[in-house]
Amino acid sequence: MQTDEQGVLRPAVCMESAMDCADVLVIGSGFAGLSAAIEAAQAGASVLVLEKMRAPGGNSIISDGGIAAPGTTYQLDAGIEDSPELMYADMLTAGEGLNFPELVKIITEGALDAFLWTRDDLGVHYLNRVDIFGGHSVARCYTPEGVSGAALIKALLARLKQLSVPICLGAYVETLLQDESGRVIGVQYLEGYQHGQPMPHSKKVILARKAVIVAAGGFGSDVWFRKAQDPRLDDHLMSTNKPSATAEILKTCMGIGANPVQLSRIQLGAWASPDETGFGAGPLFGDYVVFPYGILVDPATGGRFTSELSDRRVLAEALLRQKHPVIGIADAAAVKREGWDLSKAIAKGVVKTFGSWEKLAEHYQIDPAALQKSVARFNEMVRRGLDEDYHKPILKEASPLEVPPFYGMRLWPKVHHTMGGIQVDTSARVIHRDQYPIPGLFAAGEVTGGIHGACRLGSCAITECLVMGRIAGKRAASA
Amino acid sequence: MQTDEQGVLRPAVCMESAMDCADVLVIGSGFAGLSAAIEAAQAGASVLVLEKMRAPGGNSIISDGGIAAPGTTYQLDAGIEDSPELMYADMLTAGEGLNFPELVKIITEGALDAFLWTRDDLGVHYLNRVDIFGGHSVARCYTPEGVSGAALIKALLARLKQLSVPICLGAYVETLLQDESGRVIGVQYLEGYQHGQPMPHSKKVILARKAVIVAAGGFGSDVWFRKAQDPRLDDHLMSTNKPSATAEILKTCMGIGANPVQLSRIQLGAWASPDETGFGAGPLFGDYVVFPYGILVDPATGGRFTSELSDRRVLAEALLRQKHPVIGIADAAAVKREGWDLSKAIAKGVVKTFGSWEKLAEHYQIDPAALQKSVARFNEMVRRGLDEDYHKPILKEASPLEVPPFYGMRLWPKVHHTMGGIQVDTSARVIHRDQYPIPGLFAAGEVTGGIHGACRLGSCAITECLVMGRIAGKRAASA
Repeated sequence: MQTDEQGVLRPAVCMESAMDCADVLVIGSGFAGLSAAIEAAQAGASVLVLEKMRAPGGNSIISDGGIAAPGTTYQLDAGIEDSPELMYADMLTAGEGLNFPELVKIITEGALDAFLWTRDDLGVHYLNRVDIFGGHSVARCYTPEGVSGAALIKALLARLKQLSVPICLGAYVETLLQDESGRVIGVQYLEGYQHGQPMPHSKKVILARKAVIVAAGGFGSDVWFRKAQDPRLDDHLMSTNKPSATAEILKTCMGIGANPVQLSRIQLGAWASPDETGFGAGPLFGDYVVFPYGILVDPATGGRFTSELSDRRVLAEALLRQKHPVIGIADAAAVKREGWDLSKAIAKGVVKTFGSWEKLAEHYQIDPAALQKSVARFNEMVRRGLDEDYHKPILKEASPLEVPPFYGMRLWPKVHHTMGGIQVDTSARVIHRDQYPIPGLFAAGEVTGGIHGACRLGSCAITECLVMGRIAGKRAASA
Repeated sequence: MQTDEQGVLRPAVCMESAMDCADVLVIGSGFAGLSAAIEAAQAGASVLVLEKMRAPGGNSIISDGGIAAPGTTYQLDAGIEDSPELMYADMLTAGEGLNFPELVKIITEGALDAFLWTRDDLGVHYLNRVDIFGGHSVARCYTPEGVSGAALIKALLARLKQLSVPICLGAYVETLLQDESGRVIGVQYLEGYQHGQPMPHSKKVILARKAVIVAAGGFGSDVWFRKAQDPRLDDHLMSTNKPSATAEILKTCMGIGANPVQLSRIQLGAWASPDETGFGAGPLFGDYVVFPYGILVDPATGGRFTSELSDRRVLAEALLRQKHPVIGIADAAAVKREGWDLSKAIAKGVVKTFGSWEKLAEHYQIDPAALQKSVARFNEMVRRGLDEDYHKPILKEASPLEVPPFYGMRLWPKVHHTMGGIQVDTSARVIHRDQYPIPGLFAAGEVTGGIHGACRLGSCAITECLVMGRIAGKRAASA
């Protein structure tokens, strides 16, 4: 069995499909696509996964792998009370009520089962911890060993191997084929696609006896398409996504009538560093250390400008309004408390350490007196447990920032997640703009829209991919 | 020359087009469509307007007719400094930066000319006043005599009559016809359509030698389509729009590849009364009296809950969060200051008058002591010129609420405007999702998206319809 440079098993991958027909075709090999393929195969369907890139895993493989679920033993051990209803309420609050309630209900009710499936059935090893991110009202996020989605992709691929489901790489789907009734009956794709190279000429058709499942991911790296929805997001903003996170399959679905919903709801990652490409090593510090326990400072004023515990959308908008990168700051105690290995980010120069506040201020060109004042005020508020500047409680685990070395990182938003996409129902069927499910077409994951509304909470995307991907696979197998 | 029940001239309207071909076909007969038709005809094109309803005017005819423009003599006389740049900045602030900057620039730079065109060329009579609405930083809004869009529709129709441009009524466009190159070359429509009746069977084709202009309006009354973008907006919310404000032409455009942008940005009218249908008589009180000079009170607490001078989106969201209708309150001095005739709203029972605060409190079941306290606090803040509850200046024209009779109205949001729609460029060409202008297809008005971003400011829609409609007409005539 081969492994690629990321140590991911590559079972039965091929550059050319030997098949010209399968019960179920899956477009995309991220969390949603692989989950769908497994369930469809386990339900007895013959399945083929089509992936345009030369390696499986999509954009999922570069995520941090964090998954949200209520009701785990990790929470019980930590004395955390949680429920699907509480997670549902958190998602709707962050989503500003734009979320499709019935989809959020399914996802929050299925979250625990999906998490246990990855751990107990697929064998993913999780760190013995439970984390909270902005917008969640309790800690309910779990991270696989290695802090990477690759661990989960690896487990999903291993299961696909057991099930003898092949993955055809370099397969760029151009067309969803329909019969006269409008039923999706297969795809036409370009064979031998290589991202960034001229389009290949070899076209192939594969028919789907039962259904096609679209799990092609989001469009965070599709500058033209994202800019048409939000003109601020031009090519001056980087993306945390792979360059392959583009909109072509979403547009192909729209071309056969799939209803696009909430496309202009695009999430920016506020924890990103402008000093590295992609998702990078910095978010581990920004999201896990600075936001819960540290402070964000505008270098121009030396002052804070927002609650670091705000939800992602509020944080990113607050950063954009500063017009320039801001500085995320924490101390050794905060870093130690979180226990993350920041050596990669430090080695890259993304996160820096300083023996004193003066040195940190000098490096980031912050007025040292203003910075001292901001830190002193924050530390007082930590002691009182209340962020009086923004009328929010401070986490009880937080402590005053006073233990050197002090850590600093520049933060500037990157395009991270596209909440909008094609409309699906609770059976993962794709909905036509004329109000009916398109026969033979299912979808799951970031290519779909309406689940997270105005703002996706951290770790909820993987939960969504697993829950909806599995539903799509089961339904497609019996379509 | 016929007139309909609204006193609108109906020149050359017909239930059956004698033409089977025109240079330019215009779909829709609201502000955008009629402006486009006039300009196309004045440029020498033969033009036919297709309107699905049995009377021209679309939803425009039931608007209040308010138009925003910077740099008028009304502003000079009132000592108001304004500029296209300031209006541009206001629109982008309200739009949360989602607005397409190049379109906002064209509209704000063309606003004065469009306003003068209606007044000096078309002969619309405006009231000798200039108003401010929430989100505008200065007063720049003008209202035609009669406080209705009908005045402007009438003037546009009169010009069309002079130009011998026919309007075909009851023409329900089903299909945009394309040649092999993808160029739009005409339409197929159902003849004799009557809203709410079974679809007619008679199909007709009309070819367009030069172009088709889509000016079919928004989808505020299309419950399924709006709910797919914002699930809160189900049939429990009324709309200020006519029942005919539906999405079918928008969807037809999407069906030939038009890129839909920002569809989930749907505006709610916060000034609406749940005690009447449609736009109604209440907004005259809510928008012109309560928001600038009065207060909004939650009847459950007797207290204010938002700044009444917030922009429309913030106001509507604030109302929705109350979960029940709120009470808008003003005094006789505020009503007199604005000078509006509220007799219609009072006769309908939508706005009520009371001799004392006690009677007002009793009627709306507000705790009288709590109401007295809120009014007293507001009056103190008016004297100081600062709304300390929401950190905003109070308008200098405002005075303490103390002159009986006191006026009250229940307010509850209605779906009012759909900011999203199909993408257009600065030449009003419709943009395909694959990044090119669709040959032969133009669009203007509420059917287009991206101009107002997250929130349309009051009176900016008519400005948009006129500026972009005229551009569409000129460009189509030379297409």
